[in-house]
Amino acid sequence: MLASASAGRLSVLRAAGIDPEVVVSGVDETCDDSPGTASLVALLAERKAAAVASLRPDRLVLGCDSLLDFEGEAIGKAGTAERAATIWRRLAGHEGTLYTGHCLIDGSSSSSSRVQAVAATRVRFGIPTDAELAAYIASGEPMSVAGAFSIDGLGGPFIDGIDGDASNVIGLSLPLLRRMLAEFGFAITDLWRAPAGS
Amino acid sequence: MLASASAGRLSVLRAAGIDPEVVVSGVDETCDDSPGTASLVALLAERKAAAVASLRPDRLVLGCDSLLDFEGEAIGKAGTAERAATIWRRLAGHEGTLYTGHCLIDGSSSSSSRVQAVAATRVRFGIPTDAELAAYIASGEPMSVAGAFSIDGLGGPFIDGIDGDASNVIGLSLPLLRRMLAEFGFAITDLWRAPAGS
Repeated sequence: MLASASAGRLSVLRAAGIDPEVVVSGVDETCDDSPGTASLVALLAERKAAAVASLRPDRLVLGCDSLLDFEGEAIGKAGTAERAATIWRRLAGHEGTLYTGHCLIDGSSSSSSRVQAVAATRVRFGIPTDAELAAYIASGEPMSVAGAFSIDGLGGPFIDGIDGDASNVIGLSLPLLRRMLAEFGFAITDLWRAPAGS
Repeated sequence: MLASASAGRLSVLRAAGIDPEVVVSGVDETCDDSPGTASLVALLAERKAAAVASLRPDRLVLGCDSLLDFEGEAIGKAGTAERAATIWRRLAGHEGTLYTGHCLIDGSSSSSSRVQAVAATRVRFGIPTDAELAAYIASGEPMSVAGAFSIDGLGGPFIDGIDGDASNVIGLSLPLLRRMLAEFGFAITDLWRAPAGS
């Protein structure tokens, strides 16, 4: 099951043939100290997975959290149009690193076990024109996604390229999930939904 | 309008807010000589766009074609399960380059004009287990996609990473399309569908 309210994460899993049950953890995503972006997403992913695993101890639970690191600063959802504009003025034409923390808890084994990992993908931001950026911000998308951009939504044309795993940028690294599942002895293809009609 | 039968290309445009009319060109995708993978996708993209533009001379028409270049060989759809297995035995653990040719024809201006470009994205193939590869081939996906893989479908967990634009791997580079549209004086945000309810 997926401990996340993110539509992007759910769409990544569904496109890869997996239909998870979704339980939103309600974990507070604020963090008083600043342990660095990679450590922060690892911590939040673990909190989300642990919160949901405590409710459903018999299940395989995945928690994830994503943040953009830009010049050492962790950038989450923009929240407001003003902040989205400020973020994009900094990012345009530069590179950042999208970190996603993953925590997989297998409560079905006798001794509940967990695997944790963080994936990093470099993101090369394009330079939207003033009119394009205004339209993008008016769409509302930057306010609700980590780093104020997407590669799989309206933001796609404004991202010139990435170096790393694309699904990690959307919020859940599929090749990393495959390796994490293997540590529990699962093949990712075991999680594919049954074909329609079967 | 989009001169392509590819579900991947249509989904890339739709996710980016664009709802094109689709007209399949019926262009023969075989090519007797071997001009190299990049030249081949450029040629086929132009043929597709030109065929559809001749039917609908008043419209903005985009043609695309994608092939994987691996060790100098152009690899298209696997077609059969046997060929998919042969291709994956070669690709696993190695890198290839996914080329997509793009040809945009603007028939609405007084002198019909066209812009052409090829985008290249490096693809790092993971190493599926024998059981995972058998399941992936049995799904049928490798037979119907260029290079016998996807990053946005069941193949996602088996691709360790890319260097370049993710939408280009799916078959249509959004940042490249944005730059091509700019040559005709269009902003990509001008092509966004009207918001629901407007």
